[in-house]
Order: sequence, then structure tokens, then C-alpha cells
Amino acid sequence: MTTSKESAFLRELYQDWTNRMTANPDLSIDNLRSMFDEWGKPALEPENVGYKSGHIGGVEAIWALPEGADTSRVIIYTHGGGFAVGSADSHRKMAGHLAKALKVTAVILHYRRAPEHPFPAQIDDAVSAYQALLEQGYEANKMITVGDSAGGNLAIASVLKFRDLGLPLPGAVIAYSPWLDMALRGATLESNAATDALVGRPILEGMAGMFLGEQTNPLDPLANPLENDFTGFPPLYIAAGGAETLLSDSQTLYAKATEQGVAAVLSVVPGMQHVFPALSGRAPEANEELARIANWYQSL
Amino acid sequence: MTTSKESAFLRELYQDWTNRMTANPDLSIDNLRSMFDEWGKPALEPENVGYKSGHIGGVEAIWALPEGADTSRVIIYTHGGGFAVGSADSHRKMAGHLAKALKVTAVILHYRRAPEHPFPAQIDDAVSAYQALLEQGYEANKMITVGDSAGGNLAIASVLKFRDLGLPLPGAVIAYSPWLDMALRGATLESNAATDALVGRPILEGMAGMFLGEQTNPLDPLANPLENDFTGFPPLYIAAGGAETLLSDSQTLYAKATEQGVAAVLSVVPGMQHVFPALSGRAPEANEELARIANWYQSL
Repeated sequence: MTTSKESAFLRELYQDWTNRMTANPDLSIDNLRSMFDEWGKPALEPENVGYKSGHIGGVEAIWALPEGADTSRVIIYTHGGGFAVGSADSHRKMAGHLAKALKVTAVILHYRRAPEHPFPAQIDDAVSAYQALLEQGYEANKMITVGDSAGGNLAIASVLKFRDLGLPLPGAVIAYSPWLDMALRGATLESNAATDALVGRPILEGMAGMFLGEQTNPLDPLANPLENDFTGFPPLYIAAGGAETLLSDSQTLYAKATEQGVAAVLSVVPGMQHVFPALSGRAPEANEELARIANWYQSL
Repeated sequence: MTTSKESAFLRELYQDWTNRMTANPDLSIDNLRSMFDEWGKPALEPENVGYKSGHIGGVEAIWALPEGADTSRVIIYTHGGGFAVGSADSHRKMAGHLAKALKVTAVILHYRRAPEHPFPAQIDDAVSAYQALLEQGYEANKMITVGDSAGGNLAIASVLKFRDLGLPLPGAVIAYSPWLDMALRGATLESNAATDALVGRPILEGMAGMFLGEQTNPLDPLANPLENDFTGFPPLYIAAGGAETLLSDSQTLYAKATEQGVAAVLSVVPGMQHVFPALSGRAPEANEELARIANWYQSL
């Protein structure tokens, strides 16, 4: 499997995190949050994008404002990190690159994190942000929910929640390497265990525990969107890496969504790690994925 | 002493770091680097500033490009972090705010860090960047070296090195809470020990050890600019917090520079912590300091 020289940056970052967690299994949640904020390192700065710190619907957020973007269109970006780590800061560049590729704006949510705030605080924050944007006059079909890993779960679960609430749905949903199955049943959890430099059963069990707490069933259809119904779901783009343990979640989502009539695309890039668009601006695999997503979005 | 509600963010961040280092005295350099990258959290995003990842003179760097800036003028920003931690990323917003206030561009250096690269690697990197900018056609007097804490040392020491090399000197130098005295002789190290939430003798001794290694004298005039001669030094602006242990370094620098004919300004803001411009965009004390620096720069 030939992957670009530049893509090694992400694999090496993940291997470094894995080594640090192995060397210090009791690393505090604060230290884990600092470490995972290095997720911002692989992406290069997207050029000609401005930023603004603020709040939306009571949720702290960063706006990414590409030069020349259609300001009537907005990405609601929910970052990854097992619902417990990661931040709007760590994903600023990743979201900025996507916003620029789609010629839209983005609002990157710094939603409340587990374990201090278990499920469904994260979805509630996404709902608050979405409702505030609707109240500000954004049209639902010009909004796009996007997220990676646990944030990919949120980008999907929040739309299922909007539907439950009777809200109009966004025009598109994009998930990078979504982590959906809180019951950890995916076959690639074992079959890709040797090639995924970060994600394995122990880290997922720890994060699912913080997210679900003692109250929530791992098969709850909002905590675990694979257990939900996708009838009427917006057009969905899923990107995942061929080397990752969570690939099964993307594949199962794609199969289920397609079967239930959703216009879904699944792009699996061979040899790539979890959330490989973290390499936006740096590695050709991420840049080509952005171009494919932009073509898809223009075609909707 | 009345300080703004917003300025508590920095004091609380420092207190959190102190608590984490106390709880885990063996935190690895990688974990310390992750933690200190949170230095980027207090500043809000400066609006209408674009960024570009790149290299200058072989040194990794981020360019900050405020809308409408005079692109013939550039800040060379050297971040703080005891020569060992901190990064171009952690100081992107802080440098972006200053560049915007001065209506110039900035290049934020991700210079080589101790202990892997002890003195004078950091100064060598600043020299490489400066020479590359001169070769690109920037005029020396339209460049400004700026830094905070250990990076304030570098902003000053690099200019002393430019002079040693016979290079034309930059038009101005700005230091936020510079850490200059590697021999730790400042009176405020004791007198402000109770009010500084981060910096004390133990952390400085650890960082001086990594920077100097076993080869360099703490009184070396490039490692310790207080031991140097400031004759012919460019106009110098020094900003420091009244509550910080390193205040003496700013006061001694100001006294020495003034005595040797440098047009120097010292602004000490009561009650403020180390590198309080880290609060740029968030706290009035930082925003007012930026306005004072902009007035000073316009008057040169």
C-alpha cells in the first residue's frame, strides 16, 4: 500500500500519543485534552480564511470565514475526540479547509465534553446552535453538519434529533471516520488493529464509558446512530481510512443509509489513518478528498 | 488591585498548569509541550487576519496576514516557553493581534527547542529567518523583532547577534515579560512569588538547565542579554505584569537600555500575570496594551 510521505505525519502523531498513553496510563483528562489538541498540528493553515471567536445558541464557537465564501451557507462542525477531548481549536484548520473547499462559512462548536457532561449534552449543544442559526435566518437546506470520529457521530445524531424535534433538516451531512457503534461490534476493530496507530478497543471502551455514563444504553438510537432509522435523511458523504479500526462503522452506516433511500457516498482511501482529513493542506490524500467532497457538494 | 474579570482566564490557566505539574512532577517534555500549547487558549481569534504555513530561512513558521496590512513591514515573532515548550501555533493569535494593531504582517517562528537543541540554536534560527527576509528584499528598519518570556529574550538577543554579525538592525523591538537573566538574580523572583501563578525559581532553573546545557555560562551575553551592551540598540518597548516574578528582568533591561541611550518604554500593568498579552482580544488590559504599543510604533 503506497501512501504519501506527507501522510506519515498523522500516523506518527498517533503513534506518539499511543506511546505516551502506554507510558503513562493514568494521564489525567486535562493532560489527555492537551495532548489531543495536537490534532491541530497535521493540517497546514488554509490561506485566505479569517476567524472569529464567539458563541452560537450559548455554545462557545469559532467561525471560519473563507474569502469569497457564500455567507448564506454554513457548516456546523463538531470535532472528534471521543466526546471527551478535542476542541474547536484543534479542528479549526480542518474545518477551515473544508469551508474553503465548499466556498461556505463554518462554525466550529466547542460543545460540552464528557465525562463532566455525558450524553446527550453534546447533541443538545448541536441542537441549540442549529436552532440559533435558524433564528438568525439561515435556511436549513443551506446548512451542513460535519464532524469527525465522535464528532461524526454528533453530525449525524444531531440531524436525527432535529428530525425528532420536527425541525427542517440541513442540506447535507459529512462525516470523517465517524465513530457510531457504542457497542463496538465492527469487524475492523480486530482486522485493522495492527494498522491503526491510535484507535483500539481499550481507548473506545474508556471513551464510551465517559460518554454513556451509567444511564445510557450503548444501543440508544441517538448515542448509537447505527440503531436509528435513516428514512428522509439528507445527502450523506462518508470518508474513512482503509487502515483504521473504525472503518466498519462507516461501511455499516453507508449500507444502512443506502438501503433506507439516503443519497450516500462512501470514500475509503487505502492505507489512511483515522480522520485523515486532519492532514488537510499537507497530504495529497486529504487534499484530493476535499476536492471530491467539493464536487459532490456542488452536484447536490 | 482591581483587574478585569476577563483577565482571570490567564491566571486560572497558569494555576491549572502549576497544579498539574505539582501533581505530576515527572510529566514528560512531550506532555509539557502539549500543556503549554494551551497558551493559545486565552487570546480570542483576531478578526480579518489570514494565515499561511511555511518556512523562512529553513525555519518552520506561520505567517499572519492582517487585511490591509503594510506588507513591506514584518514582525519576526519568537514565542515563549522557556526555550523548550510553546510553539508557533500557541502564539499564532497573540502575534496576529499585534500584527493587526501595528498594521503589519508577522512571521511566527517555530524555532528549534531545548533540550534537544540548546543555546544558541534558537538565536541561530532567528538569524537565519532575518537573513532570509533581508534577501527577500525586506528593509531592516521595516522589520520588528517581538517575543514573550524566553521568546522576549530571543527577540532581544537575536538583535544583539545581528549587530555582532554586522547586519543592519530592525526598526523596533518589542518584548512581553522577557526572561533575560539566566542567573535568576531578580528581586521580584521572591517579592512576587505569591502573586505569580506560574513562574517561580524551580521552573526557571529547569528551563535554564535545558537551554544552557553544560556548555553555556548563565552570564553569556547572548544567553543573558542583561550582560550585553545596548549601545545602538533599536527603539525598545517592554510590557510586563505587576504580579509577575520576572518583572525585575523588564525593569533591569529598561534601566540598562535607557542608560545606554536606547529609546525605551516600559509599561507595567498592575496585577497582571506573566505575558498578559496572551489575553489579546479577551481582556481590556491586553487590548489597551496593544493600543499603547500601536501608538508608540506609529510615533517612531
